[in-house]
Amino acid sequence: MSPPVSQVVVVGGTHGNEMSGVCLAKHWLQDPSELRRKSFTADILLANPIAVERCVRYIDRDLNRSFSHELLSASASESDSYEVKRAREIYQKYGPKQSSLNFVIDLHNTTSNMGTTILLFKGDNFALHLANYLKTKCVDPSFPCHILLIDIPEQGHVHLQSMGKHSISLELGPQPQGVVRTDVLARMKVLVNSSLDFLDLFNQGTEFPSFEAEVHQVLHKADFPRGADGEIQAFIHSELQDKDYLPLKPGDPIFQRLNGDDILYNGEKLIYPVFINESAYYEKKVAFIATEKKHCFVPALKLQN
Amino acid sequence: MSPPVSQVVVVGGTHGNEMSGVCLAKHWLQDPSELRRKSFTADILLANPIAVERCVRYIDRDLNRSFSHELLSASASESDSYEVKRAREIYQKYGPKQSSLNFVIDLHNTTSNMGTTILLFKGDNFALHLANYLKTKCVDPSFPCHILLIDIPEQGHVHLQSMGKHSISLELGPQPQGVVRTDVLARMKVLVNSSLDFLDLFNQGTEFPSFEAEVHQVLHKADFPRGADGEIQAFIHSELQDKDYLPLKPGDPIFQRLNGDDILYNGEKLIYPVFINESAYYEKKVAFIATEKKHCFVPALKLQN
Repeated sequence: MSPPVSQVVVVGGTHGNEMSGVCLAKHWLQDPSELRRKSFTADILLANPIAVERCVRYIDRDLNRSFSHELLSASASESDSYEVKRAREIYQKYGPKQSSLNFVIDLHNTTSNMGTTILLFKGDNFALHLANYLKTKCVDPSFPCHILLIDIPEQGHVHLQSMGKHSISLELGPQPQGVVRTDVLARMKVLVNSSLDFLDLFNQGTEFPSFEAEVHQVLHKADFPRGADGEIQAFIHSELQDKDYLPLKPGDPIFQRLNGDDILYNGEKLIYPVFINESAYYEKKVAFIATEKKHCFVPALKLQN
Repeated sequence: MSPPVSQVVVVGGTHGNEMSGVCLAKHWLQDPSELRRKSFTADILLANPIAVERCVRYIDRDLNRSFSHELLSASASESDSYEVKRAREIYQKYGPKQSSLNFVIDLHNTTSNMGTTILLFKGDNFALHLANYLKTKCVDPSFPCHILLIDIPEQGHVHLQSMGKHSISLELGPQPQGVVRTDVLARMKVLVNSSLDFLDLFNQGTEFPSFEAEVHQVLHKADFPRGADGEIQAFIHSELQDKDYLPLKPGDPIFQRLNGDDILYNGEKLIYPVFINESAYYEKKVAFIATEKKHCFVPALKLQN
């Protein structure tokens, strides 16, 4: 039982060079008619307009790591970075978990072969229902759907989507930074529309039965092998490249040195790497993110009148 | 008849986020042994170290458009951009077409599906022989070789490679900016080594017979459709995406609007688009570059003793 969804925010340009969301947000800001549903009209937010203008991920710091309780609640100062100021502005408008339940849909691209990745917080069964709806309604073999769970306690949340009571981020790829691929753009448009359809159906009383979901849950982040000077010494192995969500066994090659030498995965259990060779993660010292595949039972969803 | 090649420069990081050349230049600066040949040892140049450090294309302006006669010969000023200063430094070291013939190999990546593109100036038959050698010796169906001719009069040259008496740029793709794909990296390494092999064979008296080359010659640049505000209104059509070097006929779709409408190619003759949807060219207002396919006869090449 959940109350109706009255406020929905569709966010593009949280990262200024992830172009599907940037384009769609600009388009819908000019003509929001496509985002109108019977039970609500979604807001549109271009989250980091200066980064969009310069076609960079961010100006001073990653906006999508700036929604921490600490940063949002600290007293404002002249010297705050652009993104911290922007996070506070956005949070003031949408954040403080209002009585009207809100839902955040944050639009991202990745250079990794992530297809349609629906990123949500563990325990958000409402978002899991939406993800399951997308998986069922938006079948496209070019961009298969995966559900990726972020399992961090609420006080550790830093992502923009965390300001919503419920939320998803859509991560579509592969697409280079600063490039619009029309196939990825069209896919993103379909996914947002179907998400709004789901929320509208829910608001109108449609009941969604329980189901068992296959999800990927983050285990840990893996850095590239680096020298004492911090320089990367080996890159993603060609056999791992583009193999997001496929199983990686102990002994499988993960990195390759310039001289051709392989570096093998020396973990003890099977993992499912994601965000393999994501451009924006080099500076975060992340070569890929290890996940495990899980099944979880999601109880039925029904409107609380 | 040509004099021996005594000075060869291999350049990486002319654009700081094109990672194959950046990695190889860094690697060879630490250990240049791989670039040693019987008749010469190639110099290595990391052309734009600050852009490399920040993993961006450039700091103030595109270094690979900064080697104009006008910029190189103007008197230095405090207010000169970083790249203009850097272009002058590089030109002073390698440029002034010394008595020792020099050859420049400049390493680039592109987000477009350009395979192995060997970019050279029209009329540089020496470079055409090298390109023909690479086409023959370095066959790799994943990265087919194409020769792309730049046909501009010498006084209009702005590219780094123009400081060499002879030169090629290697453009390998697709690869997102800021990403190292090991398959692309390995391919670049092979191509540079084979280029040096060719120059060494030439210096040692190997004769290279005449041949007929298939080349693509630049016709014009095509911008995206834009509104009065300069915003892009339609993106590369999914049927054109990744179709670099394939023929485009009048009436074929080239752009697609967000509402799904197609924009067709309304030119009168068959063209071969290249650099389709290159990330770095959005700001240059280039959606693709139109080329024509030509055949040219290249006379035999022989060492002048």
